[in-house]
Amino acid sequence: MEKLLVIKIGGNVIDKPEALQRFLQTFAELPQRKILIHGGGKIATQVADKLGIETLMVEGRRITDQTMLDVVIMVYGGLVNKNIVAQLQSLSSNAIGLTGADAGVIRAKKRPVKEIDYGFVGDVESVNTSQFILFLENGLVPIIAPLTFEPVSGSMLNTNADTMASTIAVALAANFEVNLVYCFEKKGVLSDPEDDDAVIPRLNPISYADHKASGSINKGMIPKLDNAFNALQNGVAQVTICHADELRNAVQEGAAGTQLTINN
Amino acid sequence: MEKLLVIKIGGNVIDKPEALQRFLQTFAELPQRKILIHGGGKIATQVADKLGIETLMVEGRRITDQTMLDVVIMVYGGLVNKNIVAQLQSLSSNAIGLTGADAGVIRAKKRPVKEIDYGFVGDVESVNTSQFILFLENGLVPIIAPLTFEPVSGSMLNTNADTMASTIAVALAANFEVNLVYCFEKKGVLSDPEDDDAVIPRLNPISYADHKASGSINKGMIPKLDNAFNALQNGVAQVTICHADELRNAVQEGAAGTQLTINN
Repeated sequence: MEKLLVIKIGGNVIDKPEALQRFLQTFAELPQRKILIHGGGKIATQVADKLGIETLMVEGRRITDQTMLDVVIMVYGGLVNKNIVAQLQSLSSNAIGLTGADAGVIRAKKRPVKEIDYGFVGDVESVNTSQFILFLENGLVPIIAPLTFEPVSGSMLNTNADTMASTIAVALAANFEVNLVYCFEKKGVLSDPEDDDAVIPRLNPISYADHKASGSINKGMIPKLDNAFNALQNGVAQVTICHADELRNAVQEGAAGTQLTINN
Repeated sequence: MEKLLVIKIGGNVIDKPEALQRFLQTFAELPQRKILIHGGGKIATQVADKLGIETLMVEGRRITDQTMLDVVIMVYGGLVNKNIVAQLQSLSSNAIGLTGADAGVIRAKKRPVKEIDYGFVGDVESVNTSQFILFLENGLVPIIAPLTFEPVSGSMLNTNADTMASTIAVALAANFEVNLVYCFEKKGVLSDPEDDDAVIPRLNPISYADHKASGSINKGMIPKLDNAFNALQNGVAQVTICHADELRNAVQEGAAGTQLTINN
């Protein structure tokens, strides 16, 4: 099967123009078929602040009422997405920016209200693989903003970028040998959150459980790793978590960051 | 040759959710291959105001410095474009939102500074027709925001939507029998700007010159009509200027608004 890179770039890198530029330069040069999913960064919070809209976060997730939805559509779907697309085009990469609504690529359902009303937040229901394949086979590079849409209501929905990356990777695993790479501002999964060099080179479900039990892996890393192992268990060939500056090594050499495996 | 509709929807309609909804309902139902170009509306000015950014207009054109460029990318490329796409998707129209940067569909050059520095404003240099044909042949409906990009600098550029519509129509006239329709809040080109019912049913270059000389056609209508006649002289089969509520009549019957012709 042909190879496909599904790469997630985290918010902290998006907030730093030089770091983003370095990352995009490497990304543009990778010869494989590829999809990029970007997070939101702090810009949405800054724009909301300036517009006098209060940002409410619960367990790291943004509460998205109608006014905040407008802000994330503007910032994720507009500013962040289009600037990445324009930069990649200037690097001769034929990028096309997409939200889940565009070409109906990612449909979602508004999260039901339980203890917390997250508002206009979507859980992915389906990925339109034939549309992605059309783009990829025609040399296009999809750049995905963390927004989905609900077909019945026609509403855009705010959606977690890590989840979108793993869901897209799993959906395309039937058609491609998929390498899923999470790029962020750390060198990988750390055995000591205080020590930036304490990278765990390989993780499997057993060692992951041990690290969780000891507390050395915690907080925001847990949903990211749950997503990642879920992708491996559902047909994704390889998952790597690495620093944005190490994308080339991670992809070409398999020698950067943390490699996830389902066997020992 | 197969028919193609290139439809421009003006800013005043975009500012009114019910009017926009009616327009999109009709647009979604048109069976022809089609492309929609949307204006910006007043939302960019409102968002800029709230962000404390002053809006400067010269002869109806927005001065676009770096902060205003960010606003128009957010509003045109994000909020307006994605809400149109999501609404059309909910109406079973396979819409895909694009700026000029996406898939490199519309390249432009930053306008040289003469008496006035318009800032990040682009004049269209080229339309990637093969990319449009790929989308159209695969049942996609391109929804174009009034933004282009400059390949060398990688900068997004603010661009007039009327000009984008006529440029796209002309570029695709080699491949399709193109019907260009400008939809806005008036019933057509008026012989008396004070009388909303004084619609001129047909205009050719001679009667247009007469109306300009008498002053009955003036102001913002002149660049719109110059664009429109230019399109006709460059291979576009038909140009209509009509009310957004009359799109169906204009397209199906050729019996709404003002029809432009190059002969008598």
